[in-house]
Amino acid sequence: MQALEEKTSSQQKRNRLVIICSKGSLDMAYPPLMLATTAAAMGMEVHLYFTFWGMNMITKKTIESLKISPVGNPALPMPNILGMLPGMSSMVTSMMMKKMQKMNMPTIKEMIATAKEGGVKFHACSPSMNMMGLKEDDLIPEVDDIIGATTYLDLASEDAITLFV
Amino acid sequence: MQALEEKTSSQQKRNRLVIICSKGSLDMAYPPLMLATTAAAMGMEVHLYFTFWGMNMITKKTIESLKISPVGNPALPMPNILGMLPGMSSMVTSMMMKKMQKMNMPTIKEMIATAKEGGVKFHACSPSMNMMGLKEDDLIPEVDDIIGATTYLDLASEDAITLFV
Amino acid sequence: MQALEEKTSSQQKRNRLVIICSKGSLDMAYPPLMLATTAAAMGMEVHLYFTFWGMNMITKKTIESLKISPVGNPALPMPNILGMLPGMSSMVTSMMMKKMQKMNMPTIKEMIATAKEGGVKFHACSPSMNMMGLKEDDLIPEVDDIIGATTYLDLASEDAITLFV
Repeated sequence: MQALEEKTSSQQKRNRLVIICSKGSLDMAYPPLMLATTAAAMGMEVHLYFTFWGMNMITKKTIESLKISPVGNPALPMPNILGMLPGMSSMVTSMMMKKMQKMNMPTIKEMIATAKEGGVKFHACSPSMNMMGLKEDDLIPEVDDIIGATTYLDLASEDAITLFV
Repeated sequence: MQALEEKTSSQQKRNRLVIICSKGSLDMAYPPLMLATTAAAMGMEVHLYFTFWGMNMITKKTIESLKISPVGNPALPMPNILGMLPGMSSMVTSMMMKKMQKMNMPTIKEMIATAKEGGVKFHACSPSMNMMGLKEDDLIPEVDDIIGATTYLDLASEDAITLFV
Repeated sequence: MQALEEKTSSQQKRNRLVIICSKGSLDMAYPPLMLATTAAAMGMEVHLYFTFWGMNMITKKTIESLKISPVGNPALPMPNILGMLPGMSSMVTSMMMKKMQKMNMPTIKEMIATAKEGGVKFHACSPSMNMMGLKEDDLIPEVDDIIGATTYLDLASEDAITLFV
């Protein structure tokens, strides 16, 4: 009986997802938000910790202008030199956004709203705000609080699925 | 006795590795495959979930032409402007591939075959396939199934080592 | 009573942080070091595993010349073409480093020293050293050992918070 209970205990499912969002490009903004909304819909407790370039995802001034970088992503079917022309990043971005609209994929702003409704917690990284000269008022209202690495580690240490995007 | 058993239980090793592969460049294709084959050889249960640019690693048309990006990686010893010349990405890639051949490092295709033999599971991300207009037939035969974020989270929540590459 | 003890056991906090450092740019060198020093200060056992471009963080020749890449990071407020001009990466880097100095942010070298004093373990990836032609003597003295993926997986499987940067 004891053995059985041990087994059950060790097979207990983790019910928390904690993702560090460190990128400021459109293509790396989608994965954490998609995982977050899905996890929240499954009843998991979800925390997103925004740091470095990831601050762009929760800053009023930048949230609607995230871009895909055609340069440095050799997965995109174009020679690097093209990615260099001014405006090229915007062109690739608008091509992908049209494709996403056709698929009825929500925008980052819409995904953040859905995540928030689902109970996902939004945490801004305090040192990143200093480094980028951001004030609380610069952040979108969905942000729950401004925390440091200690609080992040507390959240992550309680048997969570942890990812760094 | 109870205390001892608790201790043993809490020290139980995790025996599952679940990696999200989101990058389409050669340099970021190696790390997840190397970890996967090593973990499988150690007897772990291994799952790779391919999403976004990572789809290039499991798509027939792209698997043998993954490139290293010389641009945007300041770790490479060359001024960024050089990385911009058409064909430069291919040149850096072929330089690195020659080095890898000298070391007898397997190609991505060979590593995928080895991983598959070792029991590693290959999962394609269903929304990424829609976004990129890929059909099941476009994928390499090593892919086990096409799943969504819910199934990924199920796999990750069962006490797995989780990574986002 | 048994039930209560099980519950306590399953709520036990994880006390280990294991981060894979795979990037060679200044902006992606800070996050793992900041998390590592904070976790060490909280009494956690911390391991950093350096691989691929991350080797630049622990190589004598490169540790003081890590650069931010202005290209391929659409979060930076400049058209991509500017990022291409030789010397531009250095200019953006020196701008950010001045900002960091104003904030009294330590350099990478200083952060590594602090982490080391705090007990953080530094592991160099053995296959990466071969691939990059590095010898033990090329590494900074803070490196504890040269290990492979098997040892990394052993460290990660003992109930650690795991991240891939």
